[in-house]
Amino acid sequence: MPWSTVESRLQELGLQLPPAPQPVGAYVGVIRVGNLLVTSGQLPWVGDRLFRTGRVGSELTVEQGYECARICALNALAQLNTELASLDHIRQIIRVEGYVHCAPGFRDHPKVLNGASDLLNQVLGEKGQHTRTALGIADMPLDAPVQLVLWAEEV
Amino acid sequence: MPWSTVESRLQELGLQLPPAPQPVGAYVGVIRVGNLLVTSGQLPWVGDRLFRTGRVGSELTVEQGYECARICALNALAQLNTELASLDHIRQIIRVEGYVHCAPGFRDHPKVLNGASDLLNQVLGEKGQHTRTALGIADMPLDAPVQLVLWAEEV
Amino acid sequence: MPWSTVESRLQELGLQLPPAPQPVGAYVGVIRVGNLLVTSGQLPWVGDRLFRTGRVGSELTVEQGYECARICALNALAQLNTELASLDHIRQIIRVEGYVHCAPGFRDHPKVLNGASDLLNQVLGEKGQHTRTALGIADMPLDAPVQLVLWAEEV
Repeated sequence: MPWSTVESRLQELGLQLPPAPQPVGAYVGVIRVGNLLVTSGQLPWVGDRLFRTGRVGSELTVEQGYECARICALNALAQLNTELASLDHIRQIIRVEGYVHCAPGFRDHPKVLNGASDLLNQVLGEKGQHTRTALGIADMPLDAPVQLVLWAEEV
Repeated sequence: MPWSTVESRLQELGLQLPPAPQPVGAYVGVIRVGNLLVTSGQLPWVGDRLFRTGRVGSELTVEQGYECARICALNALAQLNTELASLDHIRQIIRVEGYVHCAPGFRDHPKVLNGASDLLNQVLGEKGQHTRTALGIADMPLDAPVQLVLWAEEV
Repeated sequence: MPWSTVESRLQELGLQLPPAPQPVGAYVGVIRVGNLLVTSGQLPWVGDRLFRTGRVGSELTVEQGYECARICALNALAQLNTELASLDHIRQIIRVEGYVHCAPGFRDHPKVLNGASDLLNQVLGEKGQHTRTALGIADMPLDAPVQLVLWAEEV
């Protein structure tokens, strides 16, 4: 299997592309339409366990939320990888939808979601630049701290 | 009017494609861009009444939420049908956005939204496979239990 | 710089296209993929200040929320304008994602988001017709009352 530039950059950051997480319902992880790809909502799975659970701003700190967002982004890249011959075939990340499970009064959603945005910028450079939504969610499936969706354009 | 395969399958399930619900604001129910279609957020309308109101996990059970998600999906198919010559012209359901109006601490959003996913898989088979987001929403327009968006690709 | 029809209509409404607001994180304001454009989540910035903060239904009235949604839509048009030679190159607004920061029990999200929808219909006519999602969000970045995303198709 050819080693992609993107995977090399992940390795330089001490990261490794995980297996794409299984959906938790009657749906699939990623779909392609034309040269557009969209993932399902990704949770911070590490293997078969959520890296953390709970709400940012109460059970979790902003830094812990940041790390969860980073893991969600990594899982989303793994989903894209199942539809692409290589992550080097990403022309552009289009959009990040970031949902932060947070305590009442929490306002620092952007700082949490920078965990995903920073990763994408680090491993994909200009191709990693994206639009973003950042929303606070009162109740999240499986008590996950972050849910993340990637939209990408294929070369 | 030719009877589509999709409508036949709905009938086998004891369902019938309803008229597409009217928007509740200054927008339209569905739009096509290229061969991509996207609906507005669909509520569980049955005629001019919401099938149920309230939050899943307090006023409503998971099973009642499941049924609402199923009705939302049916309404979303009705919206797509207004832009397509036939539902058989769906090449692929791309994405389901599922928003569950839920009580604090609710975690079973995936089980609720399987009401939509199962319907799509039942009536469309492989073409019904989709990506999904599942989010808990504290306050929903008109006190609806579920809001659902479909993205689809036209043949 | 040529004066576009859209900008003329804005002027007739007593409005002016503002500079596109800067993102509040590691992302960009708008991206084009093929002839599709999508903005990041827009907040009701007026210059470097949020026009209002707080929740609709407690700190803010529906009318104040409506005005915030209108400003968000104006900012989203400004984002589109940075990628288009002119706003007259919009073929169609595809989708409005409307997120209303609201107090518990609030149900009038559609009335708030009509602030965005009415503006788009006023300045773009048929090209401004769009699908819409309307969701109540318990906690919003920077305590903003509304967050809005536009999807548009380019001519």
